[in-house]
Amino acid sequence: MNIKLIGFDADDTLWVNEPNYQHVEIKFCSLLSEFLDEENISEELLKTEKQNIELYGFGAKGFMLSLIETALRVSKNKVSNQTINEIIKLGKELIDKPVELIEGVENVLNELSQKYKLIVATKGDLLDQERKSKKSGIEKYFHHIEIMSDKKEENYKTLFDRLEIRPENFLMVGNSFKSDILPVVNLGGYGVYIPYHVIWQHEKIEEAPIDLNGHVKQIDNITELMKLV
Amino acid sequence: MNIKLIGFDADDTLWVNEPNYQHVEIKFCSLLSEFLDEENISEELLKTEKQNIELYGFGAKGFMLSLIETALRVSKNKVSNQTINEIIKLGKELIDKPVELIEGVENVLNELSQKYKLIVATKGDLLDQERKSKKSGIEKYFHHIEIMSDKKEENYKTLFDRLEIRPENFLMVGNSFKSDILPVVNLGGYGVYIPYHVIWQHEKIEEAPIDLNGHVKQIDNITELMKLV
Repeated sequence: MNIKLIGFDADDTLWVNEPNYQHVEIKFCSLLSEFLDEENISEELLKTEKQNIELYGFGAKGFMLSLIETALRVSKNKVSNQTINEIIKLGKELIDKPVELIEGVENVLNELSQKYKLIVATKGDLLDQERKSKKSGIEKYFHHIEIMSDKKEENYKTLFDRLEIRPENFLMVGNSFKSDILPVVNLGGYGVYIPYHVIWQHEKIEEAPIDLNGHVKQIDNITELMKLV
Repeated sequence: MNIKLIGFDADDTLWVNEPNYQHVEIKFCSLLSEFLDEENISEELLKTEKQNIELYGFGAKGFMLSLIETALRVSKNKVSNQTINEIIKLGKELIDKPVELIEGVENVLNELSQKYKLIVATKGDLLDQERKSKKSGIEKYFHHIEIMSDKKEENYKTLFDRLEIRPENFLMVGNSFKSDILPVVNLGGYGVYIPYHVIWQHEKIEEAPIDLNGHVKQIDNITELMKLV
C-alpha cells in the first residue's frame, strides 16, 4: 500500500446523521398513528424514498418531501394541515441541528493530516453538507471537500481525475460498504469500513463485507484507523 | 483585458429556467384562488422563499417546500390534501423538465471553446444542476462545471483558488447582476451582463448596472459575446 490521499465519508463516519433522521421518522410515525401502525408507515416511507431518489437525490429536503407525500398517501388524503405543518417543522429542525462529531474523529484527523492529504467525499445536498462542514470545526484538516450527487464508480472516477490521484494511492474510509468501499475497491483503491450502529435501509447491502484481495479492512471505530495507516 | 477563463452562469444564461418556475407559480396561484388573489399569493410565496433561503438554498426542492408552506398559510390550514398532492406533482414535473437551450448558446460555446477555457459556475441544487448539464448536450464545451451553494464574493474566491486563476484573467457571463457580475468585478474580474426577459424577484437589485471601471459590458443576447472577446 502506498496511500497518498485518504477520503472520508461524512454522515455517520465523521458526524452523527442517521440517528437524527430516525428520530424524525419516529415522530412522523406517531403523528400518523391514527392511520397506520409504525412499522407499515416506515415501510411506506421507504417505498416513497426509493421512488423519489432519482428525482430528489440525497438530503433533508428530499426527505421532507417524501415524508409529506407518504403522509398524504397513508392517510388516504385525510391527514390534517396541522400535521403537514408539523412535518415541515421537524424537517427544518433536522436541517438546522448542531453537528455532533463521532468520538475520536478530531484526534484521528489531527494525526493523519500531518502525514497524508485528507479529503471529505460525501453525497447529499450541497448546502446541507457545506453547512455541516462549517459547523463541524474540522474543515481545517481537509485539503478539499467534495460533495457528490452520488457515490458510484463513475463519480469516484471523476473525483480521481480532478484530484489527479491514482486509485491505488487512494484509501476511502466510510460506514457504507455499498457507497464508500465497493466502488473504490472496484476501481483499484483501498477501503476501511467502519459500520455505524444505525444505517439507512437504502444503504443496506446483501453480501457481507469481504476482504477483496486485501483491499478492505473492517474496524469498529475510527480510532483503530491509526493502527492501519 | 487578458482573459484566460470564461465562466458562464447556467439558469437563464445557457438554458431556460425562470419561466419554468413562473409557470408553476401561475398554476399554484390558480390552485389557491379560492383563498386569495394571485398577486397576494405571489407576494406570500416570495416572503416564504426569503425566510427559507438560508435553510433550503436554491433549487426546485426548496421551492416545492416553500409552495406547500405558503399554501398552508394563505389558506389558514384549509387547503385540501388533493391540492398539496397537485403541488408536489407540479414540482416533480419542474425537476424532470427537458432542458431548453437559449438561442445562440451552442454556436457561441463552440467558437469560444477553441480559444478559451470555459467553465459553468452555477448555484442551485447539486443533483438538479448535474442533471440539467447532462441533458443539455453542451457539457463537452466545458473544462469544469462548478455548482456553488451561493454566488457571493467568498464563493468566487474559493473557485479562483481551486482553479488557480487570477481574477483579472477571469470573465463571468450571466443574467444576474447581483450574483454573476458584482461579486466577480469586486474581486477584480470582468463581467458580461445579459439580462433575461424574466428574473426571479430574489435576484433583483436596486441599482442599475453601471460600467465599473470598464469591467462590465451589457449585451442583449449571448451571440453578441463574440464581438467582445
